[in-house]
Amino acid sequence: MTLMATEIAEQPEVLERVLRDVPPQLAPMVARLRATSPRVVLLAARGTSDNAALYAKYLVETVVGLPAGLASPSAMTIYGARPDLRNVLVVAVSQSGGSPDLLEVTQAARASGAVTLAVTNAPRSPLAAAAELHLDVEAGEERAVPATKSYTAQLLALWLLCTAWGKGDLTAAEGLPVAADAMLMRSADPADELAALLAGADRIVVSARGFAYATACEAALKLMETSYVAAHAFSGADLLHGPIAMVAPGEPALAIVPRGAGGAAMLPVLDRLRAAGATLAILGDRGRHAPSWSLSLPPVDEALSPILQILPLQLTALRLALARGTDPDLPRRLSKVTLTR
Amino acid sequence: MTLMATEIAEQPEVLERVLRDVPPQLAPMVARLRATSPRVVLLAARGTSDNAALYAKYLVETVVGLPAGLASPSAMTIYGARPDLRNVLVVAVSQSGGSPDLLEVTQAARASGAVTLAVTNAPRSPLAAAAELHLDVEAGEERAVPATKSYTAQLLALWLLCTAWGKGDLTAAEGLPVAADAMLMRSADPADELAALLAGADRIVVSARGFAYATACEAALKLMETSYVAAHAFSGADLLHGPIAMVAPGEPALAIVPRGAGGAAMLPVLDRLRAAGATLAILGDRGRHAPSWSLSLPPVDEALSPILQILPLQLTALRLALARGTDPDLPRRLSKVTLTR
Repeated sequence: MTLMATEIAEQPEVLERVLRDVPPQLAPMVARLRATSPRVVLLAARGTSDNAALYAKYLVETVVGLPAGLASPSAMTIYGARPDLRNVLVVAVSQSGGSPDLLEVTQAARASGAVTLAVTNAPRSPLAAAAELHLDVEAGEERAVPATKSYTAQLLALWLLCTAWGKGDLTAAEGLPVAADAMLMRSADPADELAALLAGADRIVVSARGFAYATACEAALKLMETSYVAAHAFSGADLLHGPIAMVAPGEPALAIVPRGAGGAAMLPVLDRLRAAGATLAILGDRGRHAPSWSLSLPPVDEALSPILQILPLQLTALRLALARGTDPDLPRRLSKVTLTR
Repeated sequence: MTLMATEIAEQPEVLERVLRDVPPQLAPMVARLRATSPRVVLLAARGTSDNAALYAKYLVETVVGLPAGLASPSAMTIYGARPDLRNVLVVAVSQSGGSPDLLEVTQAARASGAVTLAVTNAPRSPLAAAAELHLDVEAGEERAVPATKSYTAQLLALWLLCTAWGKGDLTAAEGLPVAADAMLMRSADPADELAALLAGADRIVVSARGFAYATACEAALKLMETSYVAAHAFSGADLLHGPIAMVAPGEPALAIVPRGAGGAAMLPVLDRLRAAGATLAILGDRGRHAPSWSLSLPPVDEALSPILQILPLQLTALRLALARGTDPDLPRRLSKVTLTR
């Protein structure tokens, strides 16, 4: 049993812990956010945490009602930019809390007047200490290099935070641990089938819109990290603005199509992918298509659905890695904490 | 002669026109921006224009001194989010000014209190009419589907705007048309050589940091659109946080390494790519590496360098398309104006 397999399987239990241990952290945090009422939210992260930040961006815009953007650390870390950040909330997301660039961004942002929030899986990390506010995602120690349980814990912790901040109903997430357990059980065979479909693939396009775009990015990253496939994630709209040209007949394309507005917006993208002759795999609503692979999604709220969507795709990356004889726990050239500036 | 070749060759002349016709547009625009003094800048765009927006993000952060982020239209267009945008500048960048999603974002942002700026190559477009402010990039009609001259015109127009807004020296750009002409002349043979190097490639990694990251994204998009290569752009830092695992020995990797802090930050990335056994191509400073292909960059300011960096890479995409027998002017499945929501 690989560490990655163990950590994938732990997720229902992790989500249960998040639901239990994160809400008590939120009251003072939300009080502080309401008191300072930031005008805008900027998110900074790398790797898997960047995909959690992308998810959070949609939450901030739709649930909190504030504009949000993804910031690149390099403006501050490379060029030394020190923009005026009064009335800005800067959120750094990092599993390890050890990335030097995010630490520098957080310190500089705090000095420039921002309210700073670190979202980590490491409450005693430098990043957690540097930020004014800290949200512990409670995933437990993660040992496989490819992040799995820390990602879903980040998503749920960020959902809880944004929902509490936006005065929404936290109980909507109550069923997630059971749903995640069911999704993992139901995904075992389909993940094998999707891995078999991708066995000979050197490249794959992964596409989604809205909340599920984070799933597309994270699924692509997992496939790149563990199976060395050139997995390319595009928002459905961006795909049609150029990259659709490169999709070759027979090339695999994976689309995530949850119930809701984001899924509905994927329908023209599915038509274009089919017209391009792609070998279509659909996670979610297959509509009037007859894809080469499909797996339905449970009928949860679209904003919560990414927490379940990624599960079969983590399993697929794992199975494909094992089929290819690579070590999913320790992909070549990677280590658990990446030090970049 | 293809339209794309013609439009690539026109760029020195286009840059000259931008330098002549854009500065007179700026005074009222800058006055309005200073009077409203937005707290943050959000940029929205698709395709090539999105890469120009990425470039502008770094300019806003470093030259104007305001925080900036890339916004995804879908929060507004798909989910109907209407965040409070008072004191926010929303910039929509679009060659055609005809993309329905950007039009909707601009209209909604204006209604939500934002100062809105459209940056287009079409002063009579719906987008230009919808925004409070309009910056005409003066590229002239662009007929090839892959954007070339409109991209460099967007970069220079955005540089002029941000530099004027940040009270910088506009004359620093004076030499660009001559430098672009020299760069194109000097690029003819190297572009053929790089196209030959990529002839058999099915995938390629393109990487850069800071301002040049926009070049990496745009070069990848050009290769995808015209030559159907799975060209994958990563910021150097993001590459090390996972995707580096997928780089196979002998696989081509193109790095953009200008003089300056962004180029210097690429040195550890070059080491990692070399250790992975990638076939290295370097645009800029090859340092202590002996890459399979290299082309030096002229010693212009790092913030202006992207306007020159993209020229040999546009030519490479063109030559590779011709070598592969595809039509660079009309890539399969694409049209000049893409209508997405």
